[in-house]
Amino acid sequence: MAVLLLLFLSVSLAVPADLPALRGFSNETAASERDWEAKFRAIPDPANLRAYMQHLSARPHHVGSPYDKANAEWLLARFQEWGLDAHIESFDVLFPTPKVRQLELVAPTHFTAKLQEPTVPEDPTSGQHDEQLPTYNAYSTDGDVTAALVYVNYGVPDDYEALERAGVSVKGAIVMARYGGSWRGIKPKVAAEHGAVGCLIFSDPKDDGYNPGEVFPNGPYRPKDGVQRGSVMDMPVYPGDPLTPGVGATKDAKRLPIGQAVTITKIPVMPISYADAEPLLAAMEGPVAPAGWRGGLPITYRLGPGPAKAHLKLQFNWDLKPLYDVIVRIPGSVYPDEWIVRGNHHDGWVNGAEDPLSGTGPELEEARALAALLKQGWKPKRTIIYCVWDGEEPGLLGSTEWAETHADELKEKAAVYLNSDGNGRGYLGMEGSHTLEKFINGVARDIDDPETHLSVWKRLQLHQLAGNSNFGPPPDRTEARNRPDLRIGALGSGSDYTAFLDHLGIASLDIGFGGEDGGGIYHSIYDDFYWYTHFSDTDFVYGRALAQTVGTAVLRLADAELLPFDFDDFTDTIHRYVDEVEKLAKDKREQIVERNRLIEEGAFQAIADPRIKTVPPSKEPEPPFLNFAPLDNGLAALQRTTALYDRALTEAGQNGGSALARAELRDVNQRLTRLERVFLVGDGLPNRPWFEHQIYAPGFYTGYGVKTLPGVREAIEQKEWKLAQEQIERVGKVFENAGEAIQGTAADLTKAVK
Amino acid sequence: MAVLLLLFLSVSLAVPADLPALRGFSNETAASERDWEAKFRAIPDPANLRAYMQHLSARPHHVGSPYDKANAEWLLARFQEWGLDAHIESFDVLFPTPKVRQLELVAPTHFTAKLQEPTVPEDPTSGQHDEQLPTYNAYSTDGDVTAALVYVNYGVPDDYEALERAGVSVKGAIVMARYGGSWRGIKPKVAAEHGAVGCLIFSDPKDDGYNPGEVFPNGPYRPKDGVQRGSVMDMPVYPGDPLTPGVGATKDAKRLPIGQAVTITKIPVMPISYADAEPLLAAMEGPVAPAGWRGGLPITYRLGPGPAKAHLKLQFNWDLKPLYDVIVRIPGSVYPDEWIVRGNHHDGWVNGAEDPLSGTGPELEEARALAALLKQGWKPKRTIIYCVWDGEEPGLLGSTEWAETHADELKEKAAVYLNSDGNGRGYLGMEGSHTLEKFINGVARDIDDPETHLSVWKRLQLHQLAGNSNFGPPPDRTEARNRPDLRIGALGSGSDYTAFLDHLGIASLDIGFGGEDGGGIYHSIYDDFYWYTHFSDTDFVYGRALAQTVGTAVLRLADAELLPFDFDDFTDTIHRYVDEVEKLAKDKREQIVERNRLIEEGAFQAIADPRIKTVPPSKEPEPPFLNFAPLDNGLAALQRTTALYDRALTEAGQNGGSALARAELRDVNQRLTRLERVFLVGDGLPNRPWFEHQIYAPGFYTGYGVKTLPGVREAIEQKEWKLAQEQIERVGKVFENAGEAIQGTAADLTKAVK
Repeated sequence: MAVLLLLFLSVSLAVPADLPALRGFSNETAASERDWEAKFRAIPDPANLRAYMQHLSARPHHVGSPYDKANAEWLLARFQEWGLDAHIESFDVLFPTPKVRQLELVAPTHFTAKLQEPTVPEDPTSGQHDEQLPTYNAYSTDGDVTAALVYVNYGVPDDYEALERAGVSVKGAIVMARYGGSWRGIKPKVAAEHGAVGCLIFSDPKDDGYNPGEVFPNGPYRPKDGVQRGSVMDMPVYPGDPLTPGVGATKDAKRLPIGQAVTITKIPVMPISYADAEPLLAAMEGPVAPAGWRGGLPITYRLGPGPAKAHLKLQFNWDLKPLYDVIVRIPGSVYPDEWIVRGNHHDGWVNGAEDPLSGTGPELEEARALAALLKQGWKPKRTIIYCVWDGEEPGLLGSTEWAETHADELKEKAAVYLNSDGNGRGYLGMEGSHTLEKFINGVARDIDDPETHLSVWKRLQLHQLAGNSNFGPPPDRTEARNRPDLRIGALGSGSDYTAFLDHLGIASLDIGFGGEDGGGIYHSIYDDFYWYTHFSDTDFVYGRALAQTVGTAVLRLADAELLPFDFDDFTDTIHRYVDEVEKLAKDKREQIVERNRLIEEGAFQAIADPRIKTVPPSKEPEPPFLNFAPLDNGLAALQRTTALYDRALTEAGQNGGSALARAELRDVNQRLTRLERVFLVGDGLPNRPWFEHQIYAPGFYTGYGVKTLPGVREAIEQKEWKLAQEQIERVGKVFENAGEAIQGTAADLTKAVK
Repeated sequence: MAVLLLLFLSVSLAVPADLPALRGFSNETAASERDWEAKFRAIPDPANLRAYMQHLSARPHHVGSPYDKANAEWLLARFQEWGLDAHIESFDVLFPTPKVRQLELVAPTHFTAKLQEPTVPEDPTSGQHDEQLPTYNAYSTDGDVTAALVYVNYGVPDDYEALERAGVSVKGAIVMARYGGSWRGIKPKVAAEHGAVGCLIFSDPKDDGYNPGEVFPNGPYRPKDGVQRGSVMDMPVYPGDPLTPGVGATKDAKRLPIGQAVTITKIPVMPISYADAEPLLAAMEGPVAPAGWRGGLPITYRLGPGPAKAHLKLQFNWDLKPLYDVIVRIPGSVYPDEWIVRGNHHDGWVNGAEDPLSGTGPELEEARALAALLKQGWKPKRTIIYCVWDGEEPGLLGSTEWAETHADELKEKAAVYLNSDGNGRGYLGMEGSHTLEKFINGVARDIDDPETHLSVWKRLQLHQLAGNSNFGPPPDRTEARNRPDLRIGALGSGSDYTAFLDHLGIASLDIGFGGEDGGGIYHSIYDDFYWYTHFSDTDFVYGRALAQTVGTAVLRLADAELLPFDFDDFTDTIHRYVDEVEKLAKDKREQIVERNRLIEEGAFQAIADPRIKTVPPSKEPEPPFLNFAPLDNGLAALQRTTALYDRALTEAGQNGGSALARAELRDVNQRLTRLERVFLVGDGLPNRPWFEHQIYAPGFYTGYGVKTLPGVREAIEQKEWKLAQEQIERVGKVFENAGEAIQGTAADLTKAVK
């Protein structure tokens, strides 16, 4: 094994002569950069990753727990031991924990829910009940309700439309929603909008229990008593501490009274296991659930309401709890005021091995490796900031409060934010700002896949070509084969990049491996070292690959003569988004016109089965045609100026890019550092001013799922035609401004390399 | 209620003045035809349908049972009592019944399958165990095997390809296949082709058990011990008595030795309930089944092989049993040698209320109504033959043997065969020869839907427009809205039209209502009067609608001056089929070329998960381009001659169609009677000479599911390119011949009406 490892290292360290040019580097500096990068990639060690995870997951480490603080201090000690400049930055945030949790079926029979995940004998940390957070949803309001049950599938707006067609109302009811189909916080929000008085969210065995595979401890999937904890705050309005929107939750921050914190749910909500859900669902009557709503329990899923009736009582301790962000700074030697920020969180819901420690460990190894390079004489041009966040789980607390506290400086100096979170075996996942698409594709070409020893880029490309059905829709092979770069996804929410990208307009990337292993221990007591080392990246080679990928990206960004942003792929993607929203408006219009026609034709009356209650839809006003010219003109401006920047870059790259080495690039780099800020609009998206980015946002009704061109897209989805037209004009203007910024950057670059 | 009924009748009897012309009738005769039809439709009575079902389902009435014979004699007595010329025609057919049925799990634990459907107290006939046929698959071979279990999903060829990719072989194994996805007889056939030694077919609760709805007796779906009996003979080779292919199974027919009957299965096969299946499936290991393969049991579905091992022992009585077909003849007054044949079977697997008596009753009411019209002076121009078949369930025995016995006369005289089988609430189903598409659309426009009092045609059209997701793929609204006729489906197999259409080339239709009620009692002891009158067409109004629909069709066909065949819709449909097979060849070719390319690119190696055994596909020879000109030319000939026939018909229809009334149409009608025979080719389809029709056939690997242009389509599907080219030429020639026949008919019609 040792011999093989050495062989592998020697291959990694060698730099072939015929490598392609490194974007942002002259030939003079590219070779030395490749050398440093190869040295860097040889350092991360799976044995360390294993040890880190074992240590950090040894006890529950949620916000406010003793081990959460201990972990932060341990991390700080490591950074300092390696010679890095590190400190802990602390905040005080609202973090409710359960005082009373009761759920019982009170009719037609009686059943008391267990609400408890049992110890699994072979899993040593599963029995730490004294320190485990009980199963609950954080930021549920207090409540004590008794009401009929209604099954609402995933509980997204479309599901309520289907319920309405079936004549089933949730007014005054407790809804039962299954996990999946949206971020969990959407479920109580939409339920409350429809008049429900309580919400139970259950894990269905079809989704992550015995249907996809054997359950823990025989397999990786959710056992019958396993529960998914999780935050239900209304994060699409604003993440972070509910009491301090827009500002850091420092000791002396001005705080809202709890009653004014709009991100706390309107109705009580609690997660339950499928063992607790089954008797409740089985006791329901009413229409049989549509085929797509039926889960994996051996019962007939019915909609209700009733006769099953439940009593749900919840009370919480509404306390402020401390957060411990660990912050490391490696100062830049040439551009100290251009920052490359890297983050992953350290807090978990319980022992949190997969989520987040499988990503925290690699981040730690990156820092150790960078410290080693510094000792060997490496000098990054830009300042590198490593952050290990606390309080991600309850609502991106640690990253949001830090970003809000340092907003002005970050807006001035941060060029890129690089994020990771849980990590597993399989394929590289890359999501983020499309101005970084070309850059991260370049990094991915230089990373070895541990299983195939292809580059992780090549493996991902072949995966897209071969079209694994477990991994998204059928591939467009022509594009995957012929486009120089693989398309990266856009960022919604669900991890710590949110404040950086959506609130501060810092170009961001989220990186992780996965897709080969499934599981059902998410946010349960079974997400621990035992589970991870039996069912996931058991030898931590994908943990190493993550450290190699993100670390290479950090090095390359920090060392580049010219920040390697690209506007070509970006504009290509914007073109797609514009096409999408135009098609959405067209489809939505045709849909309404067509449905009105079907109503006139009497089609819905004709297909009504007299034995089944149905409510035919009503006619809607015919939508207007929208004027998309502002978007189209803005896009044209982007296309024009992107071409200018490309030309400037080609000129800069001539003669082996040595023009770059000679040039004074401070102004151009400054412009590039701040370019993404042009996508912000100060008063944000409609009804959620915290979200300022006009290209990317988490969906108001999806939660994690991204909405691109969110102002326009969501207005169309919500059929707010007047708002849609205003947003089109606003975003068109943003495109024009971006075009000007790119043009100015191109001009500066041309001047610099002349 | 009586008042309402009278009102309804008076509406039905009135013939509005502005009705459209009746195809095949002059104005002179159309009015009287409409009058007779209205009188006819007033006669069928739901109370009679209820009484017939109650009587005929009172005891088990499978082939060879005392009550099967008693039912035939009772039916005969009814026809005779109404004054009709009726007789019983008998055949002797091979019909195996179980002697030994044993199934046990022998490793890793022991479990003995129950193989027994229990009495349900509230269901009075469910306890008739002495007369019930045990749960079994007819025409399974005898066998005694002990082997590892492999789960094969539906057990169709694609499933075996997926198993091969997963490195799972069924060689020497007993396969477990779930019902659905193909006709059941395909499952043991494909299993045997892949080397399996036994086959168990189970009813999964996802398909017709608790997943779609409450189980019997609380609801209509399959209870845990319910079993689907059924035939597994290799019907796509030939249906009917396995010992007398191509000839009637009369007393003195030459019979094959049982060992030479190729339609008997190669391996033992038995159907089981989900209660019996669960312990077997739960004991399996090996790869987790793909998402689409997982059923509704609360277990992880795995592929095996083993360690679960089963012992299956089956022995049958291989006896000849008598069939009793009941045949009624109403002689034609003008064209006695042009026959309109109408059939539905009377045998069931057990008490058989839904299948077949919900269709048998309406047929009986039609005959009673026709008898009443005859007494009122109605004189059909053509001979009408009503058939109530025995032995449909084991393999279309009664209809096939009768059709084979009278093949010569039928080929000479039969113009149309009209079939029905089980019937329920909902929408009109119309399938059949596309030369009858326009005709049956016309009939459907004249039938009232009992629930909406729209015409059944209009309700079906609105259903297609509104796109009920339970009823096929999303609708093409433009076509459903604007095409004068609704498209009818093509006939595969699964009921008694098969010999008439596929072997004898008689234009056929299969008619029935359904789509509003589901159920899971198919071929179980619970398909009985109690179930039907609680969960299906409980007041028999759709039974009446069936009698009205098929009876109107019979009357109109028997009375028409000119047989109302149409070639316009037919050619339109052939055009679609030609486009489909051309696209299929193109897609198949591109698929192989593309997969070869992916193999060369190493995509399958790259996506292999080292923890999961996979077998990458191998390169295949690149398929040749096929010459489709013969089909295209044949289609052009059809389009040309269809236009000629349309013109002749328009001329004949001028002046209120009075030309028709004056013309001598004997020759034209004779030509039309026999026209469908032009689609037969004497030596039949490749490897199955019994199937002579070149447009329609049940699929060799689907069983019931139709393959249109089967010679061409299946050769392409099987990648037999040389055969495909031959079949293209053969079918092109058939099209040319059909064109000539249509042209000749058009010329005769033009001459006749001049």
